Order: sequence, then structure tokens, then C-alpha cells
Amino acid sequence: MSEQRDIEKIINQMTLEEKAGMCSGLDFWNLKGVERLGIPSIMVTDGPHGLRKQRQGADHLGIFDSVPSTCFPSAAGLASSWDRELIRQVGVALGEECQAEDVAVLLGPGANIKRSPVCGRNFEYFSEDPYLSSELAASHIQGVQSQGVGTSLKHFAANNQEHRRMTTDAVIDERTLREIYLASFEGAVKKAKPWTVMCSYNQVNGTYASENPRLLTEILKDEWGHEGFVVSDWGAVNQRDDALAAGMELEMPSSNGLGERKVIDAVQSGKLTEEALDRAVARILRIIFMAIDHKKEKAVYDQKEHHALARKVAGESMVLLQNEDQLLPLGQDSKIAVIGAFAKTPRFQGGGSSHINPTQLDTPYEEIVALSGHVSNVTYAQGYQLENDAVDETLIHEALQAARQGQVAVVIAGLPDRYESEGYDRTHLSLPANQTQLIDAIAEVQNNVVVVLLNGSPVEMPWLHRVKAVIEGYLGGQAVGGAIADVLFGKKNPSGKLAETFPVKLSDNPSFLNFPGEGDRVEYKEGIFVGYRYYDKKEMKTLFPFGHGLSYTTFEYSNLKFSRTELTDNETVEVSVTVTNTGHLAGKEIVQLYVRDVESLVIRPEKELKGFAKVDLEPGEHKTVSITLDKRSFAYYNVELKDWHVESGDFEVLIGKSSQEIVLKDTLQVQSTVRLEQQYTLNSTIGELLSDPVTAETTGQLLKKFQEASPMSGMAEDDSHSELFAAMMKDMPLRNLLAFGGGAVKEETLLQLLDGLNRR
Amino acid sequence: MSEQRDIEKIINQMTLEEKAGMCSGLDFWNLKGVERLGIPSIMVTDGPHGLRKQRQGADHLGIFDSVPSTCFPSAAGLASSWDRELIRQVGVALGEECQAEDVAVLLGPGANIKRSPVCGRNFEYFSEDPYLSSELAASHIQGVQSQGVGTSLKHFAANNQEHRRMTTDAVIDERTLREIYLASFEGAVKKAKPWTVMCSYNQVNGTYASENPRLLTEILKDEWGHEGFVVSDWGAVNQRDDALAAGMELEMPSSNGLGERKVIDAVQSGKLTEEALDRAVARILRIIFMAIDHKKEKAVYDQKEHHALARKVAGESMVLLQNEDQLLPLGQDSKIAVIGAFAKTPRFQGGGSSHINPTQLDTPYEEIVALSGHVSNVTYAQGYQLENDAVDETLIHEALQAARQGQVAVVIAGLPDRYESEGYDRTHLSLPANQTQLIDAIAEVQNNVVVVLLNGSPVEMPWLHRVKAVIEGYLGGQAVGGAIADVLFGKKNPSGKLAETFPVKLSDNPSFLNFPGEGDRVEYKEGIFVGYRYYDKKEMKTLFPFGHGLSYTTFEYSNLKFSRTELTDNETVEVSVTVTNTGHLAGKEIVQLYVRDVESLVIRPEKELKGFAKVDLEPGEHKTVSITLDKRSFAYYNVELKDWHVESGDFEVLIGKSSQEIVLKDTLQVQSTVRLEQQYTLNSTIGELLSDPVTAETTGQLLKKFQEASPMSGMAEDDSHSELFAAMMKDMPLRNLLAFGGGAVKEETLLQLLDGLNRR
Repeated sequence: MSEQRDIEKIINQMTLEEKAGMCSGLDFWNLKGVERLGIPSIMVTDGPHGLRKQRQGADHLGIFDSVPSTCFPSAAGLASSWDRELIRQVGVALGEECQAEDVAVLLGPGANIKRSPVCGRNFEYFSEDPYLSSELAASHIQGVQSQGVGTSLKHFAANNQEHRRMTTDAVIDERTLREIYLASFEGAVKKAKPWTVMCSYNQVNGTYASENPRLLTEILKDEWGHEGFVVSDWGAVNQRDDALAAGMELEMPSSNGLGERKVIDAVQSGKLTEEALDRAVARILRIIFMAIDHKKEKAVYDQKEHHALARKVAGESMVLLQNEDQLLPLGQDSKIAVIGAFAKTPRFQGGGSSHINPTQLDTPYEEIVALSGHVSNVTYAQGYQLENDAVDETLIHEALQAARQGQVAVVIAGLPDRYESEGYDRTHLSLPANQTQLIDAIAEVQNNVVVVLLNGSPVEMPWLHRVKAVIEGYLGGQAVGGAIADVLFGKKNPSGKLAETFPVKLSDNPSFLNFPGEGDRVEYKEGIFVGYRYYDKKEMKTLFPFGHGLSYTTFEYSNLKFSRTELTDNETVEVSVTVTNTGHLAGKEIVQLYVRDVESLVIRPEKELKGFAKVDLEPGEHKTVSITLDKRSFAYYNVELKDWHVESGDFEVLIGKSSQEIVLKDTLQVQSTVRLEQQYTLNSTIGELLSDPVTAETTGQLLKKFQEASPMSGMAEDDSHSELFAAMMKDMPLRNLLAFGGGAVKEETLLQLLDGLNRR
Repeated sequence: MSEQRDIEKIINQMTLEEKAGMCSGLDFWNLKGVERLGIPSIMVTDGPHGLRKQRQGADHLGIFDSVPSTCFPSAAGLASSWDRELIRQVGVALGEECQAEDVAVLLGPGANIKRSPVCGRNFEYFSEDPYLSSELAASHIQGVQSQGVGTSLKHFAANNQEHRRMTTDAVIDERTLREIYLASFEGAVKKAKPWTVMCSYNQVNGTYASENPRLLTEILKDEWGHEGFVVSDWGAVNQRDDALAAGMELEMPSSNGLGERKVIDAVQSGKLTEEALDRAVARILRIIFMAIDHKKEKAVYDQKEHHALARKVAGESMVLLQNEDQLLPLGQDSKIAVIGAFAKTPRFQGGGSSHINPTQLDTPYEEIVALSGHVSNVTYAQGYQLENDAVDETLIHEALQAARQGQVAVVIAGLPDRYESEGYDRTHLSLPANQTQLIDAIAEVQNNVVVVLLNGSPVEMPWLHRVKAVIEGYLGGQAVGGAIADVLFGKKNPSGKLAETFPVKLSDNPSFLNFPGEGDRVEYKEGIFVGYRYYDKKEMKTLFPFGHGLSYTTFEYSNLKFSRTELTDNETVEVSVTVTNTGHLAGKEIVQLYVRDVESLVIRPEKELKGFAKVDLEPGEHKTVSITLDKRSFAYYNVELKDWHVESGDFEVLIGKSSQEIVLKDTLQVQSTVRLEQQYTLNSTIGELLSDPVTAETTGQLLKKFQEASPMSGMAEDDSHSELFAAMMKDMPLRNLLAFGGGAVKEETLLQLLDGLNRR
């Protein structure tokens, strides 16, 4: 197909006004077309985990007034599955729904890093770890795009809080930006090639993301090779002409002609070249035609099938956080008190632009009843109201009665809608007081308490030691009720693992001291120490660590092997490990591979996730999992080199059931093929010069001369100060041979020496 | 005295070579003189807590080969006394010894902040808190200088580690520099006017301290009004001419003519003006003549008296960290097993340039024997060797025998010389393994264990719960033995309080993630959250908090009063509080006053120390302590204003027995007299504009127009999304009224509005 040539021809036929018009939306959800040139208008809609297509005729942002679609678990839940294939399947289903609804581009997934657990939009993001996040975002994109529907990887970049998100400036050092915040997008862009990328509202290091040429052009387009277009988050445009010049092709929504006028003015005044505008239009047209070319006419999808998938996915996403005395799974004959308003009105999705109108909604109560042996086994009490946090003694009293009568109390708790949403951040990690008090009260009267949590991001659990089991259900989508029942009764053996740390308290979080910043400035002073990278290094207790999740069966790990134990940074190594299901139930285990740089001149985390695999095992079965590591698995981002760099030396490969439960490890050696330039100066230290084989001898000779003449030399002979002397000599800059040398070393000698060293 | 005129005249008679010569040392310890002009050579020597004057004829830095002098507790200990007057007395004594030894300037005190507990030179510094540090440094300076002897406040600035101290670059944001690292010097410079200030080796934000015009001229000289000269730390000069231009007047030690030649060349080439050189010489001459004018001929001092003072000070500096079952004080008849090599060979001072040759040395063992009822009450066992960490089973066996036979075991433990010194940092907080194991073993056989620690900076105490009492003795100087005996037997009721936090483990420290940096760069990313400011905000457990210290008696606080409850930032307020000795022994209490900004737009610590007083009380006696607070007590450093600034509003005044034990508090209101300029732009948020009374009405009208037309308005009407809508509106920048306004709001309208707002 001669697509490229056609687009060029079309652009040549377009007026300046038409070209500028292509770069700004027609309305809230549609791009402009140009009828006379056969350019159709395509539609984009919200929703990483479900379609939010405005009903026809609805001319405002009304969040509820959308066409019904399947609500899958939101990203926080999806991520807990650590299942690339499963997330790809969700993407496929979403793509099918888009085709059915004539939607060209689905606005998602979100790959922002969970810097703080209180970010109001965390439920839409995958993880605190960039590798995990980018891998899962890639699967989501691949799934959707396999159906001929585009995605919009968002919100690029460093949109890690809702507080003042439209104006705040995220101040992030280059290495942190690369290793954490951009890396989460980078992998997905390179691997899955999203049709579009959505820039975020905020500023990054002083420049709005929407008009940031470094982010949008140098990094995204030139470095990562993104070929689609960049769309503004809705209303993220500051200066339209600067944005276009920076690589932000499409302004959304329509600015009622304002943006177009600015672009036209800029071209006419020479501020913006027409070539730049043409390039932008070409990128937009390319995607429009891709959508048109892949449009499936009269596409339909099977709502029931999608609902069943939603249930499967929700089950795979749930994380069994605690299961004392193996209280779970429950027997079908258990007498169960189901407690909590969420049991009948579950929270299953987050608030804001991702809020969709589900095709159906299963409630936990009904699904528990359905899977239970007898209807009479299950009682229900509301326990708390959802509208506010006030403790209702009558509701608690009823709940206690129910709890006393059951053999087990299942409390469905979590965060009500008003607690977390796009648009604002939480200020604490507490559950509503009426839920906390309810759980405490129930634990007084019932030994067997299971808490099922429905929430988009971590909560504190002061009651944790008083209950036996806790299931983290996240925001499980429209089939959450069935999935809860599946897990409770063991129809589904839980296999989710946390894609984020649950801290003991909010102030433990690494961003706490600087979140959400001062005025319009938030400094990411914790640097690369985000999530488990921080808790690891600081040796801090967590409520539940990154990667944690239990199963109803048990797994053993053995036979850690490397395809090679020595490699250069342009070679790869296969790591294999055998996992055996040593329990009595079929189950899935998520194998986590972390890499640790044993010794480094730069500050590095204790370990970083560099691979993972989910493996399905019957009782007694074993499988060998293989994970490939490459340069990036060992590298840090070297700011001076402007590239990823591996420090030659030993690296530990750690196999973990969680970030805190490392079960196997071994060491391999990686050799860098890149030599870092070393320029010596008068301020290079003696230690540096002595440790470089090339300069050691000359320096040694100089030192001898120095020590014979220096008044400091007495220290070396004095036993009590030999350590001080050694330390001083090691850290002393070359220039001090002059000051402390009693005149024995001449400046010219040193300058000649340096000249020789730096020329080699 | 027409000193100034004379100096001008002298300078006019000097040759360029003579002037350049005045700016560089004669040798290691003496300044140059110019005989023909009657300019004498004066001597400077090391030692904040004792004089380290090289013996005549000693031509090298040999640390031990110095004239005997009184070794007082080092600054870490002195600081625990929180006693301005006592430290002044130490200064007086040091000044007397300088006069007796013909020393013109004593090189100290050190006012660097204890950023990390592992900095090898922490023993020479006062505190993690800048207010406490600067107050105590001021007292030290006032004491020494009252004797006509100069001081050199060091190491200016941001020399907070020994690792690569001669080349590393301390990267610190402006507010942190001002509030923490410079503030520790600022108070002392302004209050006590040290004759000289010693610049540090390291770089600060990319420029060597020795050639940093901002630090040495703009801040130190111009802003703080320092009138003396700046001397380089020994060997801290990088480019001599740049250093002189920056305000570093005296290079030490002699660079054998190199520095002078560079200065001469710079003047001759026009790189440096001769006026600048003249100003430097004038500052040096002024101090030389001050020293000469104040010289006391044939001065002597009373070694016994100074030793007695050293004992008193050491006793006042000790901190009773723990005293379960009121095991201490010991009765005179107690059968005591004194255990530990330190009992006979105490560590009493730190390593490096401050290491002095004491006039005498009391050992803990002998002094305990001396204060005990009978010689036979006291047994001794060595317990561990000092040379290395190896566990010696024979020594432990002996120690256990002694411990079993005593009624109480007093273990003298701590850090051997090789563990901490100028020149290198520790890498962990452990005591030597042979001591830890000894303490554990003794706790097995003896219920009554007292641990006395001799160390320059915090250690971990994994054995803390197994012993009853712990005394932190720091490095107590030559009379440490007597002071330990005094405190053990209650001859001295301990009154010291920690001037630094003892963390549970090293990784708890706020600088941990970035200490000691990468190569020659260390970033102070913890910002203002140093010491208790961090542990407070992060709600972290400490081993012992800042300000902690017990007594053998008890104190009660009452009657917190303010002289006014409302003030402006150019007024002061007197805070008074009554302290009563409610126990049965005379004792001293340190009253700590912290200030907390109740609500702030900038990130602030939970509380900051802004006043303290030490009060001496007989049993049953009460005294009222009065502390004055001024603007600085409430202010933060506003980087844009380039000044200290108070945010109008409520402030809590907290009275504490420690930073974690606040016993009284009350609120007052401070009104700023400075209005911060507010420039509104299209990126100002609706929330900002609505909260400013001047702009609220116009903005409100605009909003109404907007809401009538905007497709977003549906959200406001929808109950489930009203919070989201409110948050979005508040954080929305003005410019979005254009994009989201459906064309109802025009750009011109907004620009006119802004123009009006910014002109008022």
C-alpha cells in the first residue's frame, strides 16, 4: 500500500486552514475531517478498562451518559495478575467493543508510575515499577491494536498526582526521569507501538508536557521511534503553536477555533514552518487512515463472553494478602455472614474519565449465594453506609448479630467513590471510620474474619492482626462479585501479586516529604528510590511488600541456571528456574526476577525487577521458566553518556516469590563494551590515579618524592594515625602535592603529567 | 585607637610581593610578618577543645608531638550540656592556654551540621540542629575571644562528610543551605564575631568553598557583616587568585611561594585589582594587630583548675539515656564490676587535627575506685581488646566472673580510635563485635548492667533492652574518668540531653540514600529534613530522640505564658514557663522550645528548635524561664524573596523535655509585614483567583459565564461527580476557560482581566 505517498499528495492539496484544522478536534470526541479530500472524521473515547462513548446527542462530559460497555478491572487490578497474555485478551475485547461502537482510538492505557499511594488516579495505573508497568501497558496496547483500533498511551509524562495536575511542574533529575518515569512508557512504545500517545497536563522540569520538545520529539519520536501522533490530554494545551512545534500534533478537545488560529498565525508570521505543520498533519492522517483501513463494518461483540472474561480477569487479579490457619478457601457448606454495603453495591471502577456504564453488574452477595451450597448458608448485613463516614450503631449491631451466627464473617470493605477519583488525591490511607470500626467490632465476636477490599490503591490496615484473611480485590470491574465468590470458595485459586508496596503508614512513602509539592512545583527528591526500591534500601517494614501474594497451594523453586555466567553488555543471558506445585490444588505462581549490582560507583537500588513469568501448575507438576536478560537488565542511565550503561562486574540474579522473599540467587559477570572517558585534572585524587593501571606508576613515583619532603609524612609512621594518613592521601587531590609537598613537587611536573594522561 | 588609619598607612608602604606574601602562610602554623614595617608573625593552632601547638623544632604534622594542654570534652559532648555559660567558660580556659602558649588564633569551633551520624568528624561538631549549633559555637567563640585570642569558625560550609572532602561537591538547594547548613554559622558569626572563619575543602554547588564569592563575600562579609579574615582549611586552595578574589584572604599552610606568585601574576595581569588585594591584607593585618594588642605577656594558666573544669564540663555533658528501676545512681557500698578496656584506657578525644596531648588523664577505673566506699568494692576485667574486633573468649570469661560477683556491672564501651577520625567516615553504626558480644554475655549473668559509652557519634544498641542503664559519655576529655565516677555515684546528677538523634539503624538516617554521594558529587536530597526534622515528619521511631536525656530527679512544667498572643514579624514575644524540681535531688533541666507553623503553603518541618535554657533547681524549687522569640523563630527562607519570611497565621509554641516529649503548648498569631508579590497569568488556577479577595468577584462572574456554556457543566449537577468537578475547577488554569468554555469566554477578556489584576 502506497500510504505514505497518498498522504503527501493529500497534504499538498490542503489549505493552511485545513491543515491547522486537522490539528485541533472537531468537538469533544471527534477529530476533524476534510470531506472534499476524503479525510473522514474519526472518534476517540475514554477508558483504559472499558469504553466510555458518549451517547449520541450528549454534548457534554456527563460521565454516566455513555453507551453500555464491559467494565474490566482497572489497571491496578489488572497489574496484580502480572499476566501479559491475559491483559492482551482484555485489550482484544476492548478493541472488539471499539469496532462495534465505531471508535477509532481508545484513550489508554495509563503508564504513569505510582509515586505515592494517594494519587487519586492510581487505580488507572499499573505499578510503582517501570518494567512491570511498561510490560503490561504493552500487552494492553497489543491487544487493542490487534483489532485495528488505536490506543493512546497516557499521560506522558510525570503526571503522578492529581493535585494541581493542570499546572504543576514535576521537577525530576534526568536519571530518575529515565530509569523510572520515562522507562514505564519507553518499553510500551518500543514494543507495542501505540497509535497515539497522550501528553499530560503538567509541566516537566519547567516546560508543559504539551509543549516539551525534549519529551515529545527528541525522546518519544527520535529516540524511541514513535510514528503515531501525540494528542493533548483534554485541555492540556498552553501555547498551541509552541505545542505543535514541540511535537504535540492534536489538540483536544476543540478550542473553538482558537488553537487553529494560533497555528495559522504562527505559520504566517514565520514562527512555525509550514513543513512542521505538514509533518504533524501527516502523522494524524496516517492514523486516521489506519483506523479507516482497519474498520470492521457492522462489528458486534458478545456481551456475555466479555462478561465472562471480565470475571476471569478479576479473579486472576485478586491478591490473597493474608490467610491465617488457611481459613480460605471456604467450604460450600460454611455458614457465611456477608457484611458490608459493598456486598450489594460494590465499588468496581474508579471515578473520572474512565467511569463507564457497564453492560451488567454482579454483586458479591448474590454471587456468594450462587456458589454457596444453600441460600440459607449466607446472611447479609449492611454494616456501614457509603454516603458518609459516620458510624451507624444500628448497622453495626445488625452486622454483629450476623457475624456471631456465621462460621465465618466476610466483610466487603474498601474505599467509597468519594475517596478516590481522577481530579484529586487522598490525604491519608485510612478506610472510612465506619468500616474500620465495623471490622474491629466484628473481630471481637467472630474468630474467622475475611476482609475483602475494594479500592484503587493501598489502605492502612490497623485491624490486620485481628482478622485471619484479607483479599485485595482492587476495582474489579463489572464481574467483581463473581470473582470474589470464585476466590472465596476456591473455584479460583488466587494468584495475584501486588504490583505496588502497601506501606504501614503514609509517611513511610518515599515521596511523602515532597508530595504534592509547594504551589506549582513538586520536586521528586526521592529520585530513583520509588516504591520497593526505597523500602528495600531503607530497610523499612511494609504492610505488604511489592510482589507479595499468597495461594491456596504451595510452590517450590529449584534449579536456577544461566545460559552463560559471563557476558558482555551486547550479549544476552537466559535465566531458567524450575517451579514445582508442592500443594494439593492447581494454581499459578508468578516468578519474579530481580537484578542487583553487587558493587557500583553510582547509587543504585538494592535490586530491580527485570523479568517475570506466570506459570500454571497442577498439583505435583513442575515447569521450567526461562527469562532473557539483556544490557538494559543490568544498566543504569548514565547522564553524562546520555545512554544506558553497565558497570562491568558482578551482578546477582535474584528469584523471588515477592520482593522480600528471595528464594534463589546466583551471580554472573557482565563486561561493559563502552569505556567511560576519564579526564584527569589537578583535582583528581591520588586514590583515583593510583587505582588506574595506566597512571599508577607515575603517581607512585611522584608520591614517593612528595613523602620524602612533606611535613605530613610523620603521620604515616605513627601507628595511631596511619589510617587517617592513608585516607587523607587517597582523597587528596593532585594539586595538594604542591601545597603539602614542601616544594618538592612542581606545578609544571603535574601539568605535564596530566597532559600525558589525558592524551592517551 | 586609630587602628584603621594605621593599617592603611602600612599597606601603602608595602610592596606587591609583601602584600601577596601576607596572604599566604609562613609555614604550617605561622603567618608571615614584615619586619621592616613592624608586622609580626602570629601563630595559629588546631584544636576546638584543646590546644594542639606543635613543639618547637617539630617541622611536620605529627599529631602527638604537641605541647601538653587541657583536653576538654569534644563538641559532641559539650553540645549535650546545652549550656551556653559552661561552654563560654571552656572558651575562656582555652583562651588562657593560648595566651600562655603565645597562640594568636585557635582553629575552632566547628559549626558543621551532623547530616549523617557516620561523618568521621562529627565529634568535633555540635548538633544536627542549626540553632543549637550556632548558639553553642557563639558561646565558645565569646569565651576564647574574651581572652584576646581569636577563633576560626570552621569549616565553612557544607563540609558534612570526610569522604572525598577535599574535592566533593555538596549540592544543596538554596533554602536548605540557608535554613540548615549556613544558619549554623550565621548565628555564631553575627552574635560572636569570630576573628576568622575557616573555609572548607569541599565544593558547594559547583564551586570550591575556598573560591566561592557567594559564600565568602556576599553572605559572610556583606550579609552577615564578618569583619575578620577567611583562612583556608589546610590545603583547601584550588586557584589562589580566584580564592582571593572570592574573599578567601589567607592561604594555609605555606604553598612555598606558589600561591603568592599566582596572586602577584593576577594583579600584574589585571585579573585581580590591587584594591582587592589591599582589602584582603587589611583584614589580615587588622586581626594580627588585634592579637598583638591583646597579647598578655608571660601569661600562665592553672593546669589543676583547668582539669577541674574539664571534669565539671564532662559531667555536665553526659547523657543518661536509660535508667530502668532507677539503678543509678549507685550507692557507695555497691559491689561494682568495672568491665572494659576503656575503663583503664579511656577514649577521650577524637582523631585528626584536634588530637591533643593532655596535661593529665583520669581513668574511669581509678576514679570509680576513688569515689567508692572501699577499694575492695570494685573489681576490674578488661573484657575486650582495643586493637581489633576479634572476640577473646578468655577476656569474656574473666569479665563474666567479675560480673557475676558484683551487684552491678559497669561496662565501659564505645568506639576505638580507629573507628572514627577526621579523614574518613564510618560505614555502619555498630560497636566492635567484641564489645557487643561482651555486653550480651554480661547481661546473661548480671541483671544490673550499666553501659557507659565513649564515642564521638551515635551507635546502634541491639542490647539496649537487656541492660538497665546507659550513659552516653561521648568523648569526655582528659577528666572523663572522674566525670563518669561522678555520674555513676550521683555526685553529679546527669543533665545532658542529646544534641542529635540516635537512629535505630543507619538506613533510618535522612541522608542515607545519598551519602556519601557518587564520585565527587553529593546531593542533599533530604533538603531541610535533617535530624529530628526528618524523624518527626516521617513519624519514625528513633533509638533516642533529639533532646532526650534523663535525670536522677524529676521536673514538672507549668504556666506557659506569652507576653503577647498576636504580633507582627518585626515584634518579639517573651515566652515564659515554670519548671519545678519535683524529686528529691538537686538537678538541672534543659527546657526546649520548638515552634510549629500550624498551616503553611511551603513544606515545613513539624517543629523546629527556637529556644532553650538550662535551669538549676534544688528539690522542691521552681524557677520561671523566659525565652524571646523573634521573626526568625517563625520564618522560613523564601528563595524568591531572598530573605527570611513569615507566613501570617497561627504558630504553636511547644515546650519539650525532648523533641518527642512535648509537655506544654499554646498558639500565637504572627502577622507578616511583607506582602509577597502575586503575578497572575493564564496559568493561574481558578482556585487561586477565587481565594484572593481582590480577584474573587471578577473570577466568579467569568465562571458563571463559563459554566453556562461548558460541556463540563453536566458534571457539576451529577452528585457522584460533584467532588471531581469541584476539584477540577479549583485546579483548572484560567486558560482552560477558553478551551472548555464552548467559546463563551474570549482570550481578550482574560488578558484584560489579568492586566487589571497585575497592575493593582
